[in-house]
Amino acid sequence: MRVLILGGDGFCGWPTALHLSATGHEVAIVDNSSRRRIDEELGAHSLTPIESLDVRVQAWREVSGRSIETAAFTVGKDYDALLDLLKAWRPDSVVHFAEQRAAPYSMKSARHKRYTVDNNLNATNDILAAIVDSGLDIHLAHLGTMGVYGYGAAGMAIPEGYLTVKVETPDGWAEREILYPANPGSIYHLTKTQDALLFQFYARNDGVRITDLHQGIVWGSQTRETRLDPRLVNRFDYDGDYGTVLNRFLMQAAVGYPLTVHGTGGQTRAFINIQDTVRCVELALAHPPQRGERVKVMNQMTECWRVRDLAQMVSRLTGAEVAHLPNPRQEADENDLTVENRRLLGYGLEPVTLEDGLLLEIAEIARSYAHRADRSKIPCVSCWNAERVQATAQQSSVAAE
Amino acid sequence: MRVLILGGDGFCGWPTALHLSATGHEVAIVDNSSRRRIDEELGAHSLTPIESLDVRVQAWREVSGRSIETAAFTVGKDYDALLDLLKAWRPDSVVHFAEQRAAPYSMKSARHKRYTVDNNLNATNDILAAIVDSGLDIHLAHLGTMGVYGYGAAGMAIPEGYLTVKVETPDGWAEREILYPANPGSIYHLTKTQDALLFQFYARNDGVRITDLHQGIVWGSQTRETRLDPRLVNRFDYDGDYGTVLNRFLMQAAVGYPLTVHGTGGQTRAFINIQDTVRCVELALAHPPQRGERVKVMNQMTECWRVRDLAQMVSRLTGAEVAHLPNPRQEADENDLTVENRRLLGYGLEPVTLEDGLLLEIAEIARSYAHRADRSKIPCVSCWNAERVQATAQQSSVAAE
Repeated sequence: MRVLILGGDGFCGWPTALHLSATGHEVAIVDNSSRRRIDEELGAHSLTPIESLDVRVQAWREVSGRSIETAAFTVGKDYDALLDLLKAWRPDSVVHFAEQRAAPYSMKSARHKRYTVDNNLNATNDILAAIVDSGLDIHLAHLGTMGVYGYGAAGMAIPEGYLTVKVETPDGWAEREILYPANPGSIYHLTKTQDALLFQFYARNDGVRITDLHQGIVWGSQTRETRLDPRLVNRFDYDGDYGTVLNRFLMQAAVGYPLTVHGTGGQTRAFINIQDTVRCVELALAHPPQRGERVKVMNQMTECWRVRDLAQMVSRLTGAEVAHLPNPRQEADENDLTVENRRLLGYGLEPVTLEDGLLLEIAEIARSYAHRADRSKIPCVSCWNAERVQATAQQSSVAAE
Repeated sequence: MRVLILGGDGFCGWPTALHLSATGHEVAIVDNSSRRRIDEELGAHSLTPIESLDVRVQAWREVSGRSIETAAFTVGKDYDALLDLLKAWRPDSVVHFAEQRAAPYSMKSARHKRYTVDNNLNATNDILAAIVDSGLDIHLAHLGTMGVYGYGAAGMAIPEGYLTVKVETPDGWAEREILYPANPGSIYHLTKTQDALLFQFYARNDGVRITDLHQGIVWGSQTRETRLDPRLVNRFDYDGDYGTVLNRFLMQAAVGYPLTVHGTGGQTRAFINIQDTVRCVELALAHPPQRGERVKVMNQMTECWRVRDLAQMVSRLTGAEVAHLPNPRQEADENDLTVENRRLLGYGLEPVTLEDGLLLEIAEIARSYAHRADRSKIPCVSCWNAERVQATAQQSSVAAE
């Protein structure tokens, strides 16, 4: 299969590109290096020393004997480049990672809100419009987020994309299946709910085949392929904007910083290991929807954990202390969460569990690269709104007394 | 009240600006003349001879003694100009018409899809981000569309924005109120469903007070204020992209062109007269939601009609013939529609009915300006997808034999 990976230089995109290449697919990457530029903007950097995309691809050729083509342009702006590439390279599938993917970054300021909306929605619309324009029957797989559902709204397991409800009709209450009502927690999550409406429209109007993978919070950084050579190492973010919660804990433990739990830590979230991410994308590409079928939605997650329980697990394994900080996010302090994920399990996913994989991750990444950490980048300084700015400042000053 | 009108030079924006100015509000307009540039792109023009915004505002000053300030920049691009204006002029309310508003235009090509998504979503997000940034408690009123609901999906009257459904919970089926599931019929309508998610987010996260007016198809062109001086005349679009169905019929009748009904004409749509549009916006501004309240949604329409019944009504009044053409839109041929609109009626709206107002419109606009019509611009040439292109071409060639 020919697979075009948009955003193939990023945290999920790069290991996905390697995994698909390793499993015999022809792979090409489009990336505009936006994630690397954001590192510069934030003065942050990956804990692991990542190489340029050119070096990465060259290393992969040496290690595997396989080529990955690359192109550098902005999906969502350079429409003609995208359309020309589709027509010339004729991919069977496009995997769409070309979005700004950090909730805290999307909430930093008006500029960051505007960038996230502009980048993410124009990227998704351009891909869909270009697939229609190309006349090719390309399957689009998109990395969505569990965050589109909101958390624990209905008190039932979150289904895979669609919710059965009863609506009143002239003949009484009747069952209907609707797109799960959106309840996004940040501008970033919001754009993914808006993406879902784009997918629904193009699937119905143009018959585009689309899979939307609602992914949990990714932990870990290495996969079978990225371990093959130091130059293939994946990025590992630990800063307050891009570092996902568990990876932040691992790095905090490694450098002797307390594990920073926001609020009570009673937030339950869905998780997945990066190795399972790349496997799930492969499974999704192997099981596309039929032409004319509605958007296929799968929940790409393997475990649910409360944040404080994660902190305790890491603390137990490492001896690190747990510190409770005011929550900069506008969200409930405590929530339950159960999630349906039968489809990907049914296709053969065998999850890497936290309890099995955590020690390896601590040894392999957090401890090995702890000397590269910049402790000043650990705190999350993006507040969700004016009230959270005040509350965070107040509680921090109380805590400091 | 100080009211800032974004898109105040357009078909709905201009008469709204005049009406609010006439009723004693302080009014300012932001407009980037995009609608006038699209006229140039399409080689089309308003049936009525509209003046430049400068001349319009000057004429209004002469006629009414009232000033309307204007600013020319693009909402959605020139963020600093927007934020500076909010801070300096400190409006109580912002009325947001600054979107590309024609479904056929949004479906013409990839470029038109991309422009509509980029323009509409960045405009809405910029306004919301700027209101938050300004720190002012500004009420935002947005012109949405009945098209966000899809048509007749549930077989019940379409409620005002929210739908009561039953969802399964551990304790059995329980009632919940959800945003009405979106089922947009074009890229233009899609952007309005995406706007709705933006509104929901900013209302919840930042407490922004927002009213979303889901408007039916507007007919007519003049209001009490635009009639006061020929230089104040409102635009009247009759081309295949921007001409709304009833206004197209009126103009077709006036120039002896058959009334072009797409498909069976069994599509039922919601309508509102332009005089009622401006009155509804005034009523919406007088009844804003409270801070912290959810988005207030009102259905801004007064009557539902089947397209073929409208054609017959116009035919009866004018003697024009009715012609059935293949439908370029991807939509059901026949649908029923009933709509809740109690809120605006409850605030005192007294609708102008089609049966009362149609003859005046025919005499005042369609006949008076028939000599300005360009018959070549009447057909709708935007097809919704590849199948509709084929079907339209085939059926047209059969019809021509």
